[in-house]
Amino acid sequence: MTIKEIKNQIIKKKSFLCVGLDIDLDKIPVFFLKLEDPIYEFAKAIVDITAPYTVAYKPNLAFFEAYGPKGMNSLLKIMNYLNKNFPEIFTIADAKRGDIDNTSSRYAKAFFQIYNFDSITVTPYMGKDSIEPFLSFENKFAILLTLTSNIGSNDFQIKSLSNDNKISKMVYEDVIETSKKWKGSDRLMYVIGATQSKSLKSIRKLLPKAFFLIPGIGFQGGSLEEVASNSLNKEVGILVNSSRAIIYSFKNDYTFKNDVEDAAKEIQNKMHKILKNNNFL
Amino acid sequence: MTIKEIKNQIIKKKSFLCVGLDIDLDKIPVFFLKLEDPIYEFAKAIVDITAPYTVAYKPNLAFFEAYGPKGMNSLLKIMNYLNKNFPEIFTIADAKRGDIDNTSSRYAKAFFQIYNFDSITVTPYMGKDSIEPFLSFENKFAILLTLTSNIGSNDFQIKSLSNDNKISKMVYEDVIETSKKWKGSDRLMYVIGATQSKSLKSIRKLLPKAFFLIPGIGFQGGSLEEVASNSLNKEVGILVNSSRAIIYSFKNDYTFKNDVEDAAKEIQNKMHKILKNNNFL
Repeated sequence: MTIKEIKNQIIKKKSFLCVGLDIDLDKIPVFFLKLEDPIYEFAKAIVDITAPYTVAYKPNLAFFEAYGPKGMNSLLKIMNYLNKNFPEIFTIADAKRGDIDNTSSRYAKAFFQIYNFDSITVTPYMGKDSIEPFLSFENKFAILLTLTSNIGSNDFQIKSLSNDNKISKMVYEDVIETSKKWKGSDRLMYVIGATQSKSLKSIRKLLPKAFFLIPGIGFQGGSLEEVASNSLNKEVGILVNSSRAIIYSFKNDYTFKNDVEDAAKEIQNKMHKILKNNNFL
Repeated sequence: MTIKEIKNQIIKKKSFLCVGLDIDLDKIPVFFLKLEDPIYEFAKAIVDITAPYTVAYKPNLAFFEAYGPKGMNSLLKIMNYLNKNFPEIFTIADAKRGDIDNTSSRYAKAFFQIYNFDSITVTPYMGKDSIEPFLSFENKFAILLTLTSNIGSNDFQIKSLSNDNKISKMVYEDVIETSKKWKGSDRLMYVIGATQSKSLKSIRKLLPKAFFLIPGIGFQGGSLEEVASNSLNKEVGILVNSSRAIIYSFKNDYTFKNDVEDAAKEIQNKMHKILKNNNFL
């Protein structure tokens, strides 16, 4: 998928919503549990309900791996369903991978060629040769962890680096600047937590063109309006993720369809207003 | 598995060898390709040949994921085979995982409970709450990326941090010190690349008791003797990994068994000498 196609979708659907698929069999309506592949059936239902409001889906790999090889088979079926029926929707493997080059190449193969995702989240700790293997696939993207939404982001990401005995920048800012020099860096996007909205403005200055994947609204507490005002660029340039606040929004099994649709619609409505107020529509 | 059991194995086998299972169907003897599950059959053969010389096996997740759900099924079979036939051998999921708490909990479930590994490699970028979920399982370990063997370790790991405008320590040293404060930190081990042997001595001072997983000898060029002299502690305290230099050591398909055994034996012989010279035997 190209950046242009992502932007076209955003304008067409008046939405920059990414729905996270963190599927937990203990939380889904019981009627799915009677079917042969409840993980797939639940994901399919979520996709069918939310697709009109959604420009991206983000399966969270941990939730599939936790069900063993069967869970990975459910993931493969979900990806086949998405690519066949909603080829215009951007797909993100939320996998946070990264290893030495020959190993990262294998992860890239797995997620770009076997599961056929458009993108994968990656983690920067091992540097250049752990990320570049993900950047050599045409129209595929690696989404680099930069400043995350969780409390542990304080441990290393915001530590100050020293240069000639002077504070130069924070670790996450160095991740941004270093990543720009990597081969294929035009295929990088960046994960910035919605709970970090005060830093979003300065991050946008460092990365005027890149797309940001922004998790952390909803359950984790970030504000959509604040996030958008600090991070929109000329191409919109953001995908805001909501997982639990949409897929587990139903009050009970009988209201599943309506409640999930309402939850997605409500966020999309807010995004519609934001896009209008910023002259994208 | 307990640290004591790992040490007992090391003394018994006169070896601190970990064999990495980075299984690539393009590189294995062709006779395996005719069998129903070549990945499993090759891994089983490697285990049967090398077990007398080996105290740990380290399947590399990327290589299994690259074959889709079927690859994960092969991994499950390998783990069942190892746990049934070689329960005394330590197993490491080389997965480099790490995410927000509810997601890391799922990865922990996948690797400790579904695939039944003794340990998993994890990546520190997201901090405390991304690692602690791995540290709450009795007799299971998380092995934290610290100073890796690849060229990209220069990008962030060895950057200097600033404290009160003074250089305080490098990022990887901060990873070590911060990690010690995490809940369950006695279940942490650390990944230190063999190519970083000059830093191993100072790292051992920061971590006198912890076990190190040391990849990067063989194909990546680190020296076993130098590594050992800089990192052994009272409990031995190191597992040195070799992957490609053992499992793809065969000159041709006909000499597969002998060549692989010789390669493992040769490293084990060196380790035997090192353990003897350091009065462990």
